Amino acid sequence: MFYHDKKLQYTVKVDKPNPQFARALQQAIGGIEGEIRVCLQYLFQAWNARGPVRYRDMLLNTGTEEMAHIEMLATAVCLNLQGAHSSVIESIVGDDPLMEKIIGGGDPRHFLSGGMGALAADANGVPFNGSWVVSSGNIASDMFANVMAESTGRTLATRLYEMTDDAGMKDMLAFLIARDTMHQQQWLAVLEELGHGDIRGVLPIPNSFPQSQEHQEFSYAFVDTNIDPDSRSAGQNRRWTQGPSIDGKSEFREIKAQPVGDEPMLAPPIPEGHAQTEQIEQAGQKS
Amino acid sequence: MFYHDKKLQYTVKVDKPNPQFARALQQAIGGIEGEIRVCLQYLFQAWNARGPVRYRDMLLNTGTEEMAHIEMLATAVCLNLQGAHSSVIESIVGDDPLMEKIIGGGDPRHFLSGGMGALAADANGVPFNGSWVVSSGNIASDMFANVMAESTGRTLATRLYEMTDDAGMKDMLAFLIARDTMHQQQWLAVLEELGHGDIRGVLPIPNSFPQSQEHQEFSYAFVDTNIDPDSRSAGQNRRWTQGPSIDGKSEFREIKAQPVGDEPMLAPPIPEGHAQTEQIEQAGQKS
Amino acid sequence: MFYHDKKLQYTVKVDKPNPQFARALQQAIGGIEGEIRVCLQYLFQAWNARGPVRYRDMLLNTGTEEMAHIEMLATAVCLNLQGAHSSVIESIVGDDPLMEKIIGGGDPRHFLSGGMGALAADANGVPFNGSWVVSSGNIASDMFANVMAESTGRTLATRLYEMTDDAGMKDMLAFLIARDTMHQQQWLAVLEELGHGDIRGVLPIPNSFPQSQEHQEFSYAFVDTNIDPDSRSAGQNRRWTQGPSIDGKSEFREIKAQPVGDEPMLAPPIPEGHAQTEQIEQAGQKS
Amino acid sequence: MFYHDKKLQYTVKVDKPNPQFARALQQAIGGIEGEIRVCLQYLFQAWNARGPVRYRDMLLNTGTEEMAHIEMLATAVCLNLQGAHSSVIESIVGDDPLMEKIIGGGDPRHFLSGGMGALAADANGVPFNGSWVVSSGNIASDMFANVMAESTGRTLATRLYEMTDDAGMKDMLAFLIARDTMHQQQWLAVLEELGHGDIRGVLPIPNSFPQSQEHQEFSYAFVDTNIDPDSRSAGQNRRWTQGPSIDGKSEFREIKAQPVGDEPMLAPPIPEGHAQTEQIEQAGQKS
Amino acid sequence: MFYHDKKLQYTVKVDKPNPQFARALQQAIGGIEGEIRVCLQYLFQAWNARGPVRYRDMLLNTGTEEMAHIEMLATAVCLNLQGAHSSVIESIVGDDPLMEKIIGGGDPRHFLSGGMGALAADANGVPFNGSWVVSSGNIASDMFANVMAESTGRTLATRLYEMTDDAGMKDMLAFLIARDTMHQQQWLAVLEELGHGDIRGVLPIPNSFPQSQEHQEFSYAFVDTNIDPDSRSAGQNRRWTQGPSIDGKSEFREIKAQPVGDEPMLAPPIPEGHAQTEQIEQAGQKS
Amino acid sequence: MFYHDKKLQYTVKVDKPNPQFARALQQAIGGIEGEIRVCLQYLFQAWNARGPVRYRDMLLNTGTEEMAHIEMLATAVCLNLQGAHSSVIESIVGDDPLMEKIIGGGDPRHFLSGGMGALAADANGVPFNGSWVVSSGNIASDMFANVMAESTGRTLATRLYEMTDDAGMKDMLAFLIARDTMHQQQWLAVLEELGHGDIRGVLPIPNSFPQSQEHQEFSYAFVDTNIDPDSRSAGQNRRWTQGPSIDGKSEFREIKAQPVGDEPMLAPPIPEGHAQTEQIEQAGQKS
Repeated sequence: MFYHDKKLQYTVKVDKPNPQFARALQQAIGGIEGEIRVCLQYLFQAWNARGPVRYRDMLLNTGTEEMAHIEMLATAVCLNLQGAHSSVIESIVGDDPLMEKIIGGGDPRHFLSGGMGALAADANGVPFNGSWVVSSGNIASDMFANVMAESTGRTLATRLYEMTDDAGMKDMLAFLIARDTMHQQQWLAVLEELGHGDIRGVLPIPNSFPQSQEHQEFSYAFVDTNIDPDSRSAGQNRRWTQGPSIDGKSEFREIKAQPVGDEPMLAPPIPEGHAQTEQIEQAGQKS
Repeated sequence: MFYHDKKLQYTVKVDKPNPQFARALQQAIGGIEGEIRVCLQYLFQAWNARGPVRYRDMLLNTGTEEMAHIEMLATAVCLNLQGAHSSVIESIVGDDPLMEKIIGGGDPRHFLSGGMGALAADANGVPFNGSWVVSSGNIASDMFANVMAESTGRTLATRLYEMTDDAGMKDMLAFLIARDTMHQQQWLAVLEELGHGDIRGVLPIPNSFPQSQEHQEFSYAFVDTNIDPDSRSAGQNRRWTQGPSIDGKSEFREIKAQPVGDEPMLAPPIPEGHAQTEQIEQAGQKS
Repeated sequence: MFYHDKKLQYTVKVDKPNPQFARALQQAIGGIEGEIRVCLQYLFQAWNARGPVRYRDMLLNTGTEEMAHIEMLATAVCLNLQGAHSSVIESIVGDDPLMEKIIGGGDPRHFLSGGMGALAADANGVPFNGSWVVSSGNIASDMFANVMAESTGRTLATRLYEMTDDAGMKDMLAFLIARDTMHQQQWLAVLEELGHGDIRGVLPIPNSFPQSQEHQEFSYAFVDTNIDPDSRSAGQNRRWTQGPSIDGKSEFREIKAQPVGDEPMLAPPIPEGHAQTEQIEQAGQKS
Repeated sequence: MFYHDKKLQYTVKVDKPNPQFARALQQAIGGIEGEIRVCLQYLFQAWNARGPVRYRDMLLNTGTEEMAHIEMLATAVCLNLQGAHSSVIESIVGDDPLMEKIIGGGDPRHFLSGGMGALAADANGVPFNGSWVVSSGNIASDMFANVMAESTGRTLATRLYEMTDDAGMKDMLAFLIARDTMHQQQWLAVLEELGHGDIRGVLPIPNSFPQSQEHQEFSYAFVDTNIDPDSRSAGQNRRWTQGPSIDGKSEFREIKAQPVGDEPMLAPPIPEGHAQTEQIEQAGQKS
Repeated sequence: MFYHDKKLQYTVKVDKPNPQFARALQQAIGGIEGEIRVCLQYLFQAWNARGPVRYRDMLLNTGTEEMAHIEMLATAVCLNLQGAHSSVIESIVGDDPLMEKIIGGGDPRHFLSGGMGALAADANGVPFNGSWVVSSGNIASDMFANVMAESTGRTLATRLYEMTDDAGMKDMLAFLIARDTMHQQQWLAVLEELGHGDIRGVLPIPNSFPQSQEHQEFSYAFVDTNIDPDSRSAGQNRRWTQGPSIDGKSEFREIKAQPVGDEPMLAPPIPEGHAQTEQIEQAGQKS
Repeated sequence: MFYHDKKLQYTVKVDKPNPQFARALQQAIGGIEGEIRVCLQYLFQAWNARGPVRYRDMLLNTGTEEMAHIEMLATAVCLNLQGAHSSVIESIVGDDPLMEKIIGGGDPRHFLSGGMGALAADANGVPFNGSWVVSSGNIASDMFANVMAESTGRTLATRLYEMTDDAGMKDMLAFLIARDTMHQQQWLAVLEELGHGDIRGVLPIPNSFPQSQEHQEFSYAFVDTNIDPDSRSAGQNRRWTQGPSIDGKSEFREIKAQPVGDEPMLAPPIPEGHAQTEQIEQAGQKS
């Protein structure tokens, strides 16, 4: 079963709110490359696991971690939708002026349906779809599905990173990119354990993103979210918690899940969003 | 952020495996009345919350609890898909023989796509859809959405209860029905707090299900999943943790989240499902 | 705007309730060939109409009529889900025993989600999808979309007709098949009016269904649902209300919408469906 | 069965056409908070009703009324897509400049697929989905589903109201907001009748919208769309047609459905939309 | 079975890259009026064909041709997303300034999910849906479905034609419009063969688009994609390969499928899209 | 562009028609593990390819091959839906009697919507969804997506193989399983070429299926569907056309695409499916 605390796994700060970026972030929440998908995928694979228990344990840990990523991104969407300073994406990627046109406007449903809140949908407002949750009953198929999810996920995160010059958002994405680095490797570690796996050269995907820009203290660490003192940790003496990483660039290690971020605090509702009167008046009150 | 242990919130036991019932249980996992919907709905409402902090806290707790319900139901699906004894639903509900025809067969994707595992889909295999996740930014709208979800959810659970004579499944459902009883009330408690609410007569919905059959020790208890000792619990001195329940039938109380069930242990893969060879050979091994 | 009475456009009677047939009927409600689609398609074409007013008028009439068809079919689903007599589809079509296997079981969501009620979904429980509503702004494109909808719709209705030996269901379908005959022709009449159209030989589609089995008094009659005495009727002196039918087999005429059927009366809820207690106790009460 | 006239339930006038607002209005047509959903939801609940007849009657009336709301909004979309004056949303809500960015552009499918017509889709072009139509067979669950639909629906309508300074659009929305006020209450009146219901303080949701801005002559009136003189009206002596309103702010009353608006008249097709030649030449002709 | 070469069926050239137009083109790829739909629809009708072989043969040819249309449009999307010159749609259709607002921005998923590539989705990013593929088993129903698809498809293509002043894009669309002209007629030719069909006046739909602007050498030519020298061609002596066209404006003829366009050559990945390093370095290399 | 002949890539023969198996086969056509997905995925990756030309070439070849696989499976569905002998799945997999229950009945839409034809949908009738088509712009991400598709696809095919004792169906599946073996390896060959890849031990996935049962002459052969004599073949001297296979079990080779199967010939329409009269009368006629 599951537990929570009120803090974020990593700091989420937005210096210059930007609704277009809020829309883009939705892809990482509810898109096919996004966190709802990996969260449910790893958890369903765990719940359906009929093989060795260690894989079930590993999947439970990482599925639980992904919950915290959805939380971070939903918070980031909310923060990008509030505040007084208008600041569109100006210093957009590279030397190609067409890029700017592609981004388009925000998502009107952030206001119309959410009152300035995140949606369980992608960057075009297309809802998350449960068909994306792969749990095949074959551990190798599942691991490839997971590597694929983390590869397209990390690629998406690096593109979001390039799209923004907001320091807070870049910091958050540098953390998420690092976690994707690790997650790619841990699924490949299972494949190695099951046979013989060695595809170091292509990792981490995309390999064109300089790893110096990701938060490397998290790039090769397995995060253990299990709080039961009586239960053997999933990670002890596993291929994915010690020894050289699959890409040969570091050593695996294991850390206990621990929030780095604070409890998030959103701005009060704007009047035009027509929250309940009491909700507006008591906004931010703790009791 | 989120944590887990390896045990189930409540015992999940299947005496007579039944693939048709596995299919029916999918409605409670991935259907519009199901647990993935309420889990994401409460969590998105929490993450998007701009009003008083106590509502955000409450939503986080119950959203986290719902994760454990998906886990229980996914485990129940897996257990209904395994084993040697064929036992179709015989003593189906009531005196209407047509009922039996309605149930139909199992879901072939349980084998074809899942290798005898649960899906993120409803009883007809229609995938979970993120559009069902309501988070409107208006706390009263959201609370009505939540009451509605728990009312259709409890109605579904009582129908599943009537469909089976498997003691283990009836026991699990009696727990889930009790939790729905509580959840209906806690959202109404918010509405009461925000204005003046009193709709006791209709509760719990459906009121035609005898409450003596639900596990009443859980019917009026708020479950606190927050493990941070430094963080004030969501439930202390709240309308939904003490005082008379909204239906006037009991007193609210608060309990710490605690697993009643064990760590689940599924049967090994069947050969025809073509898991990896190593997965079959090492099934059940802890390390 | 819209009005109603409490009676059905045509009689809906079920002699031998049959949940499998209830499932099959769903295709005619919420499937791509079904009545929700044509209802919304004709109404959106009317509301978006920028050409001559007479086409807008015609579309409004037939779109309104289709509402009554959804109502008839939903009633038919409910009646097939109730009652004490078990009677599976025995004398299924033709000399091919495989046909029987294809039909499969009922839809478990009729009980689980609907408490023995119809769904806005197709025969596999896949929800109605608004993308099927074609309103292109080009009247000829729209008319072809409408002929196509009525052709696949009539084909579906004849297959349902062949699937059942229930006299009541055959009677209802004979009416709906006749209406599809007319609707195919009225859209083709617009094409004729706009240019020169003559495709009589293939009509009505499918032409392999003997028209003697459809209720021919409705096969060439335009139904006028407009109740405003001050508003010129859509049908007066139109190509689709007088003169030879497009298939050359009859004369068009116009009739005022008039219920042939009675107010439907469903059986009370079964206890296992857990309606509210009051709902069960007061079932059928008029006040 | 169903009938129509050619007029609108309430006046729909657009002073300054605005494609962005046309896009936003789509949420109220084909979104989960929109009118297609409530229309089908109330009608399916009526058609599936197995309890007391008075609830079936009430649902039929209001389901029929909602058809007229889809019609009004589709007309509003069409009017916002035509005309010579460019007038983007300038005086957008409140003091938060970010709001303006959120709205984004129009929906290209209004031109590409519709030739300047409305779609059966939401503000992001996501099609209406039949899974949103809740008809559970439990009248209390259904009533909560209906209150929820009208709460999120009224919240959406107030947000649309804040987004525009077009007098015609504000007038139309003030009517729709009033109808949502009534609809919230009539479903709660059923809950009161079934048990004991009193949640007056939170109503109407959102309670932060000043009711002086809604058309209050429609805020507490049950609209009877039944035209059968022989059939007892649904509303006579019902909890929802007389006595104090649920929110304690007024008295319920009943009115016969009567169009306030005129027959809509759209501009002819623009040449670039490539309607048929005859359609363009005869645009607006009555015969 | 199927074969390919590396060239395009017709030239695809983009003079002024335009991401908004790239978004609009998606409607012709993955929208309900688009090429994936007709491709799969004709092929499924062929594979399911139980009637005379000549219809199966015809469907196979045209289904195969449509593959090449998806290819052309996907290439056009890619070319509109690359290059150094910013050139928004300026000389947009007609004299109505509102049109410009409707188009909105680009699709952010072209960058976020595709790295500047096309998607299997419509202009709003809504994914292609298999429910649109009509194959009814009744050849007349299927032919009307096909005429409808080509009518809405040609209408869409003419609107795209009006939206752009890019010579390359206009040239490509003039080809596709011509092919739609032919395809409308060939399905009607089947209807004529099956009965008696003559609806010349409305063709080609839309008839308001001047045919002098389409590439008329392709407007009445059946394209034979069958490469098996031993297999009798589908088109020999068929109603759709010789004799007067259905619209009476030309003569049908048959041509062997032959690429007019070259092998496409896209620009290298932009650095911000984070392709693999090797992919960027070796871009355009042939071996 | 694309070409076809009228024969099947491999023989498709059904000895004992079986509608339940027809339903199961739909998963391999329109399911997330199915052939429409891989076909469109490889083709979109080709059309969007911005890296070295050799990858684009390879993708075009295999995407084209997959078209032929959809064709084979659609033919197999049709053949399983026709004929006079009733033969349900009796000797179902393994020693677990529950398996039989899981399969359930057929898909009623095979008759109702298709007149005994295949659908673009999965085994539960859920339509194919374009969101499954992954084309990320990062070649390594794409290759992992492709390995995943072929791993879940081969797992599905082996499960279908275990479900049937029909010699024709086993023969067809043995071919498709062999092709999946090859396709897994060729995508891994790209990864090897891009870096350093060696994961031989787990291959082919699932490794629990005895390769002696697949048609091994196709297990390590790249199929070249390119018919342009002037265009350099994709496969010459490529990692995936010569040298040891990735799993170390064989040598890669290249073969020209060549049909092994015959032109399919389906039974005439059954009368109850109401094809057009002419279609029934002329069934099987070649001209």
